[in-house]
Amino acid sequence: MSAAETSGATMPGAMRSVAVVGGGAFGTALALVAARAGRRAVLVARDAETVAAINGQARNPRYLGDLVLEPAIVATTDIGAVAKADLVVLAVPAQATRAAARDLSGVVRPGVPVIAAAKGLENGTHAVMTDIIAAELPQAAPACLSGPSFAADIARGLPTALTVAAADMDLAEALAQALTSPSFRPYASDDLIGVQIGGALKNVLAIGAGMVVGRGLGASAQAALVARGFAELARLGRALGGRTETLMGLSGLGDLVLTATSPQSRNFSLGLAIGEGGSVAALTGAGTKLAEGATTAAVAVRFAAERDVELPIAAAVAAVLSGRLSVDGAVESLMSRPLKREVE
Amino acid sequence: MSAAETSGATMPGAMRSVAVVGGGAFGTALALVAARAGRRAVLVARDAETVAAINGQARNPRYLGDLVLEPAIVATTDIGAVAKADLVVLAVPAQATRAAARDLSGVVRPGVPVIAAAKGLENGTHAVMTDIIAAELPQAAPACLSGPSFAADIARGLPTALTVAAADMDLAEALAQALTSPSFRPYASDDLIGVQIGGALKNVLAIGAGMVVGRGLGASAQAALVARGFAELARLGRALGGRTETLMGLSGLGDLVLTATSPQSRNFSLGLAIGEGGSVAALTGAGTKLAEGATTAAVAVRFAAERDVELPIAAAVAAVLSGRLSVDGAVESLMSRPLKREVE
Repeated sequence: MSAAETSGATMPGAMRSVAVVGGGAFGTALALVAARAGRRAVLVARDAETVAAINGQARNPRYLGDLVLEPAIVATTDIGAVAKADLVVLAVPAQATRAAARDLSGVVRPGVPVIAAAKGLENGTHAVMTDIIAAELPQAAPACLSGPSFAADIARGLPTALTVAAADMDLAEALAQALTSPSFRPYASDDLIGVQIGGALKNVLAIGAGMVVGRGLGASAQAALVARGFAELARLGRALGGRTETLMGLSGLGDLVLTATSPQSRNFSLGLAIGEGGSVAALTGAGTKLAEGATTAAVAVRFAAERDVELPIAAAVAAVLSGRLSVDGAVESLMSRPLKREVE
Repeated sequence: MSAAETSGATMPGAMRSVAVVGGGAFGTALALVAARAGRRAVLVARDAETVAAINGQARNPRYLGDLVLEPAIVATTDIGAVAKADLVVLAVPAQATRAAARDLSGVVRPGVPVIAAAKGLENGTHAVMTDIIAAELPQAAPACLSGPSFAADIARGLPTALTVAAADMDLAEALAQALTSPSFRPYASDDLIGVQIGGALKNVLAIGAGMVVGRGLGASAQAALVARGFAELARLGRALGGRTETLMGLSGLGDLVLTATSPQSRNFSLGLAIGEGGSVAALTGAGTKLAEGATTAAVAVRFAAERDVELPIAAAVAAVLSGRLSVDGAVESLMSRPLKREVE
């Protein structure tokens, strides 16, 4: 018997109750996903007003405010509610995932899968989200969900295909089945590293793509940057043990394409505003919407340097974000490489 | 000595004069490219009014009409002018490339490189453009130019990076150097098949992406289709001998990203209009702008079937274009695949 089988949690039939931790746009959308897939969905949010509005009016006024949620979703501020869940989704920012996991350490039952929804690498440790879950919740089965998707589109029921990964393929397939509905199709994978490196790096590359567009360089330059950026993403992913087919799939290339070409993406929008001359400090400071790539950029560059992997686009993005390079300097260094073979 | 060296045409210094055949938007843009790179640029066009306007007012009123061209570009209706060229660019549609090459058979001097700018496969023969050039102009050195680029953006001087390929790498590098200017960066490759299969198939996939968006399925579904479409492009390219790094580069992935996400693309726009309910016959009939993918779709599917390669997205696009499948049927078959592993 595999570890997942002994836990009794591999069968989607057994995953009757899903707790989503995080009352932001993505957490709200994923609670909707769980409800649509026929699960009992509990949304754990900090904000009492959000909780009251979801329970009273089936709305989340701060996020996706124009959308009526499934009335079956129950919201609570009580993290203890997670104890009843057969499946937990952590929908908090990457840099908040460790604290959220720690908060759950006395609550999550043994063998329960915990899915990270954030895309990023932890500052300081360079850890992917499932490594954080493994460290803070050793009784749980770490998993992650990643792929081309906007919370608003998921919530509206637009068709979305993405990847759910766990070290155990049987568990990944059970998780995929537990969350599937006509508009939401997760595909199972056991390549935790490939899925998470793609998800982390695409946000950084999207900031670069936004900068190129914001500087007025046009769609061709943007596409060239996406292609070179994908090579960078694939290089880092493979160096860390990810598989090429994962990196070329929904959670790598698919999500990169979405994030690096759509103004709906916070990361692309941040790059766009910087490229148009906006101040990095003002665009990333208090009260702004979180763009995960802004934190991940420097972490990814340091992580890659330890492995002797070069990430010129991510490095240029990180240098602009930290004030060490002007946007013009970055764009110049990205677009005017010396004339040589494309593949070296 | 290589064949290219014996021809005396490998050194960019020797490529003083460039003839571009084809007075459309792309031909006009490439004549501008040649002029900006310091070459003598001759544009051979059929239309006497176009020729008179370029020579008299440095404008092409039918294409890129709002743009002032380099006054150094000389236009002519006389195909004999190609005899003086050290480098020839064929900027005519894919299905017209054989006839254009044939017209040049008594004109092109031995050893002169002839670059195909069209992206597609020939109906009937399934030939890539450089094979057509090799067959019709055996005295020439076949080459091709492909990558993320819109004629209007090239003409406006927006930065563009793309791939120029020839069987001989020294020749490819000389061609890249001969056409380089600050805003136009060709990278050399010797992977003729990889470059051309990417260029041909991305147009077909862009029609599919447009259909998904036109049906209102949103950006996430579009990105998922691009990722799955890239796998299809890479599969066909590799089956025909193309290299993975070429398919992942500017001429494959880069051009796919541009074409499948931008309404500036004729192929994406065609798919968009079909997805919105437009009539295929009206959208592809006489007087409409050419979308190369509309021809290439069926050719690519037949070509792939001969090699036992499956192209589900291209097949769905071809079926819609030929009236054998409704848009809803195609979208259904593309988006609701059975729940299984993403990579099989």
